[in-house]
Amino acid sequence: MNTCSFYIVERNTVLSSPRGICIDPIPEAIASYDLDEITLATLCSHTSLQIFHGAREEGFKTLGLAVGQIPKYYDAYPRAKPDDFLVVGSHLDVLKHAGELRDQNVILIPHGSLVEYLGADNFLDLSVPTFGNRRVLQWESDRTKSRRWLEGAGVHMPKEIRDPRDIQSPVIVKYHGAKGGRGFFIAKDYADFVKGIEPSAQYTIQEFVLGTRFYFHYFYSPIAKTGYRLRKGALEMLGIDRRLEANVDEIYRAGGAAVEPTFVVTGNVPVVLREKLLEEVFDMGRRVVEKSIDLFGGMIGPFCLETMVTDTLQFKVFEVSARLVAGTNLYPTGSPYADYVYDTMSCGRRIALEIRNALRSNQLTDVLS
Amino acid sequence: MNTCSFYIVERNTVLSSPRGICIDPIPEAIASYDLDEITLATLCSHTSLQIFHGAREEGFKTLGLAVGQIPKYYDAYPRAKPDDFLVVGSHLDVLKHAGELRDQNVILIPHGSLVEYLGADNFLDLSVPTFGNRRVLQWESDRTKSRRWLEGAGVHMPKEIRDPRDIQSPVIVKYHGAKGGRGFFIAKDYADFVKGIEPSAQYTIQEFVLGTRFYFHYFYSPIAKTGYRLRKGALEMLGIDRRLEANVDEIYRAGGAAVEPTFVVTGNVPVVLREKLLEEVFDMGRRVVEKSIDLFGGMIGPFCLETMVTDTLQFKVFEVSARLVAGTNLYPTGSPYADYVYDTMSCGRRIALEIRNALRSNQLTDVLS
Amino acid sequence: MNTCSFYIVERNTVLSSPRGICIDPIPEAIASYDLDEITLATLCSHTSLQIFHGAREEGFKTLGLAVGQIPKYYDAYPRAKPDDFLVVGSHLDVLKHAGELRDQNVILIPHGSLVEYLGADNFLDLSVPTFGNRRVLQWESDRTKSRRWLEGAGVHMPKEIRDPRDIQSPVIVKYHGAKGGRGFFIAKDYADFVKGIEPSAQYTIQEFVLGTRFYFHYFYSPIAKTGYRLRKGALEMLGIDRRLEANVDEIYRAGGAAVEPTFVVTGNVPVVLREKLLEEVFDMGRRVVEKSIDLFGGMIGPFCLETMVTDTLQFKVFEVSARLVAGTNLYPTGSPYADYVYDTMSCGRRIALEIRNALRSNQLTDVLS
Repeated sequence: MNTCSFYIVERNTVLSSPRGICIDPIPEAIASYDLDEITLATLCSHTSLQIFHGAREEGFKTLGLAVGQIPKYYDAYPRAKPDDFLVVGSHLDVLKHAGELRDQNVILIPHGSLVEYLGADNFLDLSVPTFGNRRVLQWESDRTKSRRWLEGAGVHMPKEIRDPRDIQSPVIVKYHGAKGGRGFFIAKDYADFVKGIEPSAQYTIQEFVLGTRFYFHYFYSPIAKTGYRLRKGALEMLGIDRRLEANVDEIYRAGGAAVEPTFVVTGNVPVVLREKLLEEVFDMGRRVVEKSIDLFGGMIGPFCLETMVTDTLQFKVFEVSARLVAGTNLYPTGSPYADYVYDTMSCGRRIALEIRNALRSNQLTDVLS
Repeated sequence: MNTCSFYIVERNTVLSSPRGICIDPIPEAIASYDLDEITLATLCSHTSLQIFHGAREEGFKTLGLAVGQIPKYYDAYPRAKPDDFLVVGSHLDVLKHAGELRDQNVILIPHGSLVEYLGADNFLDLSVPTFGNRRVLQWESDRTKSRRWLEGAGVHMPKEIRDPRDIQSPVIVKYHGAKGGRGFFIAKDYADFVKGIEPSAQYTIQEFVLGTRFYFHYFYSPIAKTGYRLRKGALEMLGIDRRLEANVDEIYRAGGAAVEPTFVVTGNVPVVLREKLLEEVFDMGRRVVEKSIDLFGGMIGPFCLETMVTDTLQFKVFEVSARLVAGTNLYPTGSPYADYVYDTMSCGRRIALEIRNALRSNQLTDVLS
Repeated sequence: MNTCSFYIVERNTVLSSPRGICIDPIPEAIASYDLDEITLATLCSHTSLQIFHGAREEGFKTLGLAVGQIPKYYDAYPRAKPDDFLVVGSHLDVLKHAGELRDQNVILIPHGSLVEYLGADNFLDLSVPTFGNRRVLQWESDRTKSRRWLEGAGVHMPKEIRDPRDIQSPVIVKYHGAKGGRGFFIAKDYADFVKGIEPSAQYTIQEFVLGTRFYFHYFYSPIAKTGYRLRKGALEMLGIDRRLEANVDEIYRAGGAAVEPTFVVTGNVPVVLREKLLEEVFDMGRRVVEKSIDLFGGMIGPFCLETMVTDTLQFKVFEVSARLVAGTNLYPTGSPYADYVYDTMSCGRRIALEIRNALRSNQLTDVLS
């Protein structure tokens, strides 16, 4: 990255455009690293089994960041257990250990929970080399900016309704920030909206689109020289999942009992897409990546477009997740798509492979921030 | 095949019984082929990644038939990318290239999209050696004949209602031809039917059966000497899927909002069946194959029975697909069933293996038409 | 096992607490076995493909117990076909062949269908060494005792309503014994209950809980020395499934048509869980095993907690199955969880591995009863 990787921002303010003083200690930190002793670290949650497993398979040392105590479940999964743990008192305490992490030649692998628990500002402040481009957060966590990004890339999104009094047909009301869908609700009109909305919450009102949900596990490598080529680098799509949400995905089992739907993610199920739609899947991914390069220097590594395929076979994209999503946990050793590229590969391992490839070609700073 | 493989039929007529002059250039074409240089070709869509991947694994050259331009998504899946492409202006242009394809020692692997886009008559006219028995089309694409076939084989089908005025309980109205379920609708009575039906369309009215859908990925080899034996050859069942249809499979998410269900296939999800029902699964498959031998010389290779298992554990078969179905895309390197037979196997690769086995035992014309 | 493995109970009585004369011929039988010639046997149904496949992979001979005739479907799955069959006239006839089975050095691998068809009493009477602790049946098949066990272990269960006149919100009425869910029904009030209940059936009324269902495939080894340690031995969790039930899981496809839901298991689909919930999954499993040690000497080998995850991410356990469940059929060579422990492993193979490990460490009687 030739541009500034991140900026000092004031704590507790909504993230907006890059501003403040550019501090960029990452290339400096990397310069001091023992590149034969790189350790990949992440927070013990979300997709950590997959990340640790993949890092080990690619020959890296691994470190688990654990809050309070070491989770015991790693003992049951020896191939996915980190070599070592750093136990901190709270998620925010991770920041205090930045120097220690750099001393251990740590590259941090972010996932949804790490960013959520640390908070976007703190994540940006953390002066530990991190896989991917952290500036994407400023575009992803703000629904107005993410819509500008995605619509700017030419993908179709569900219509947004600015004024709740304009609700004419079913809409879904979403709160800002990634809280696993808690509190999302469907409203058919303004009265429904008023009844459901939490006071003082920041929300977005989206057209409720029906179809089939597909969540695509993309991986963008800025340094790849073969494959599905973009303006720079190459794009992969290594798997697809559908999310399971409680209680909406079993609400039909309640029969006529009137139950309010809730949208809390509990797990994921595997799925494949009609092959003829793959051309559009890759084209959407390409445009979203290339627009990200224009807007903020590019999203790097794993990302997910959360889509609905309608009965006219149109894609509606309702969200982008600019990092490893939990649906990738379905495929620790391969998937119906990854199997056409690799012997055994997960998206978590793909991150480790990218770091390995970058080390080999002396491009490490191109995939970190 | 000792009987005639296909017949000249007039273009643009509904297919009926075999008639016209028997032309059978296939054995002749094969006689001129360089059997060390066989190329497996298919249309770039539907199950082509799986077919090309499987063909490569079995050591064949591969050729992609692309309409308009070469799809770019193969670049992302190098193990499933054909060695070469033949780009044609339209699907029908494939017919003009028959000589060229034969010059390249091509065996065509049909899939649902190839047959749909080419049209049944053109597919029958195409004088390129093709895997499987093309005559099955005359039985499969005509709902009256397919019902005669399946019921003749002793499998249970949803009741058919001839006269829409006889609709007494929920029915599903299906249009003829494989269009991915677009336009199918449920009607509860005659008024519903009249409201939903497209003028001048050919349709079938079936009893709407409730239960759980299972789509079985069978493979019938007329030349196998071991396994689950039939009167001739052997039967495999290598995987099961359930289809995802937009919008009906997420319609419960709309809550009370009154939405008309639609039935457009968007993808597939994996599933396994209660083991005790496997005995019936194989028996149904056996009877359908053996009846096909009696009726038209036999269905060869992959086929699918699309079934519903009711709450009394009865199978209702609502359709047969006499070729590779898209649900097999779930299992490019194995499945919960294929793993009990092979190290790694997809239904696409199984086709290539069948051709390889036929080459070895000098029975190639037994699996082509 | 130092305690008595099983007891003589009167035929056709409801199982209650252990009583009667302790007969324990199992250690004696094992003492007479040729340990180099152990044969693993099970009833040809349910999870038998997986069990036979796993036994072969671990180097055991295999024997299929077939009622009436040898099922033909094994011919299609050569890697999962038993070496030999014992054909009996009826399920109960298995008891008459106990001596013959012992002469063949048979260890019986129980699964849900074997126990159901044999009957709990007969299963306890069968004097053939059997994998696992048969005494668990007395706790599992009686809903009052299983609730005492599970609630005693500190897991949360749906509330039970003793008196149907107390039904205030939706409940599910379940009949005793494992009949694949046939006849289960949802009632919203007492009138519903009266309308749905079968006369003279034994039933349980449970609060109807909404969320997402997850069925965890645990394996408890009393002899393992590494892994997720319990008071004694170690716990694994090798996969998760969701059951498909006819017709309730497709009832939404019927649109407005008023259909009574039924709950007959027809198959299973794969799923992964949010990783942060794994800590609780293992803790629940640990507590259920340790309570079983206190109550009846411990459950051994595969078991399943059938749970609902609510939209507050709480687990509700509605049942324990103390043996191999059919959902494990999804994963004959690995799963998104087993892949973090083993190269290739199914729960069926894990049983064979446990017997292999016990043979190596001379602890066979610790895993049999």
